[in-house]
Parts: sequence; C-alpha cells; structure tokens
Amino acid sequence: MAQRDTLTPQDWIKAAFRLLTSTGPTAIRVDLLCRELGVTKGSFYWHFADLAALRAQMVAHWRRVATSDVIAAMTSAELAPRELFIRLFETVLSQPARDYGGAMAEAAIRHWAAGDEAVQAVVREADTERLAFLTLQLRGAGLSGPEARSRAALLLATLIGLEQLTGEPALPRLDIPGFVDAMLTPARMVDATGGAFA
Amino acid sequence: MAQRDTLTPQDWIKAAFRLLTSTGPTAIRVDLLCRELGVTKGSFYWHFADLAALRAQMVAHWRRVATSDVIAAMTSAELAPRELFIRLFETVLSQPARDYGGAMAEAAIRHWAAGDEAVQAVVREADTERLAFLTLQLRGAGLSGPEARSRAALLLATLIGLEQLTGEPALPRLDIPGFVDAMLTPARMVDATGGAFA
Repeated sequence: MAQRDTLTPQDWIKAAFRLLTSTGPTAIRVDLLCRELGVTKGSFYWHFADLAALRAQMVAHWRRVATSDVIAAMTSAELAPRELFIRLFETVLSQPARDYGGAMAEAAIRHWAAGDEAVQAVVREADTERLAFLTLQLRGAGLSGPEARSRAALLLATLIGLEQLTGEPALPRLDIPGFVDAMLTPARMVDATGGAFA
Repeated sequence: MAQRDTLTPQDWIKAAFRLLTSTGPTAIRVDLLCRELGVTKGSFYWHFADLAALRAQMVAHWRRVATSDVIAAMTSAELAPRELFIRLFETVLSQPARDYGGAMAEAAIRHWAAGDEAVQAVVREADTERLAFLTLQLRGAGLSGPEARSRAALLLATLIGLEQLTGEPALPRLDIPGFVDAMLTPARMVDATGGAFA
C-alpha cells in the first residue's frame, strides 16, 4: 500500500546513483532501491509512476548539475576566459558531489548511455552544450573557429579524464594555470611549422 | 563434467569483457559467461580454477594491452617526443579493440576498481607506469621535472577522456599536432606572469 514517508524524490535519486556507480545500470531496480532505503515498494510508487520516471529524473539531474549549472555559474561570474577555465578545472578537481555518485558518476552515466538510447540522447545534448560553451570561451580568447572547436573537445576530454583520476595517489601537483595558458595559445605561436589550422 | 571444447582462455576473457562493459563487474559470473558462450559450466572450469582466476586474467590483459604494450610499441619506434605523443593520440582515437570492450573498457575497469581492491591495485600500477613514461618523454622534450609531471597527468587525463568521447557525433576535427605542441611548450614561454613552476 502506498504511504507517505519522510523520503524525498532526491533521496531516491541519490540511492539510484549509489546503485549505478557501485554496480551498474542494471542495479537500478525498485526492489534494490527499497532495500537500499529500507522501505517498501509502496513508498517508491508514492514518488514515481514507474522505474522509467526515476531513470529519466536521474539523467535530468546529471544533465543539470554536470553541465547546465556549471555553465550558469561560470557565466554569472563574468570571468575572462583564462580565469573561467582555471575555475572550471578547480570545480572538477574539488571533491564532486558524493551524494550523487562522486567522481565516477560521469563514467557511470557514459557507460549506461552505451546501452540505453534515451540516456545516450541526454549525454549527447550535454556534450554538445559543453563543447559550444568551451568553444565560445576559446573564441573569446582569440582562437580561430576550427582551432577553438578542436581545443574545446580536448579540454572537455581533459576534464572528463581528470575527474576519473582525482582519487589516484600517483597524481602529481598540477599546474592548471600553465595548462590553461598553453590551451589559450594559438598553435601557430608555439609551432613554427604551422598547426593543422594555421 | 569438465570437457575440452574449442574455446580458448581468450574467448572467455573476451566474453567477460563484454559482460563487464555491457552490464558491470557484477555480471562477471560463471552462469552468465556460459550463457554468453553457449556452453556448460564444466567448460569454464576446464580453463580456470575459479572466477577469481578469470578476473585476475582480465585485469592482467587490460594492464598489458592498455599500458605495457602501448609503451613498448612507442619506445621501440624510437620516436622524438612530439611524434610519439601524436602517435599515442592516434592510437587512442583509432577504434580500440572491440573484442575486449572497446572504448568503454577503460572506464569500465576504473568503475570496477572503485569497488574492488585487487583491481584498484592494478589500475594504480598502470597509472604509475603511464605517468612515469609520459613524464620521461616530457623531460626529454625539455620541460622541468615538476612541469613534466603536471603535463604528464594532464595528457593522461586527456587520453582517458578522449577515448570515452570517440563515439560522440559532436566531436569536431581535432588538431592533435597543435595540441601536442602546446603541451610541449614550457608555461614560462606562453605565460608572461610565470606558471606555478616557473
């Protein structure tokens, strides 16, 4: 019997992220969620029409916190591109929200997307939004269109990879400002032979 | 009853990677492997003492092909650092071995490592070996020790992230030589204010 309890939809979404990152997308099941939260199935159906509704809210949550919110925060701070990129790296390197799967959430979502078209569509939307934002900033820093697009993709790759390396004990002290400066320098200024887009 | 069949240990390892990347580490089970390969459990125990033995061989395989073999190939080609890094990116961007989980194998192994200390130990060994190799190349290109270590970690992050983005339709044409040139340029040459290690 469905009954009101003290759990919020966010509690269910957090529990589902724990199952996703600890086991994988196949673990996002009503019975395992109820066991995780110590409640009956009725409690689940009080908050969600079905499992698909919970899954959609998980992906929407990830889409918001890992992309839209980050872009909004960076934009509202009205930073110059160099400072913006440095802050972006600091955001990724600072301990990510443990409640929602932590540093492995991005990899877990991408893994999930490989086997689920609805999730993949959201991941592609997020990547497209991220690439457009990074490209815009690199254009603002003076890079040409093709070079800004290329560097944006490489910066996105670096951020995704770095998040997965955050727990790595062998990770050395990082010179993020130096890396950002290198990324903002057109290839023609560091490569006498001319880069692919020179 | 255990009986000889035409499967090799590599067939079992490939099947286990398919289960790992499609579902997650909890799917690496004898019954699911036998269903995947259409054989009885006796066949599994012909090749492996137990599941732990198969898991150890999976991780050892990944350790070899994703790190040791790559470093050996790069080293034997006797390339200058710039050409070596360009070839390293080309290797990652070319379609990775589908037989062993393809582009998601690295993320799947890292996800597995988060919940399994034996796997985590191997991932850390691999990361340490990769960072040492990349640092050595960057030192050879003239970067100082701390800067070479920092850039090595950022290059490793870029390679890990890029592998996960290979299937992304929004990924633009990449100027890898231009990116490598930027990575090989000391921060003091692109940053008049001096990088963290200048």
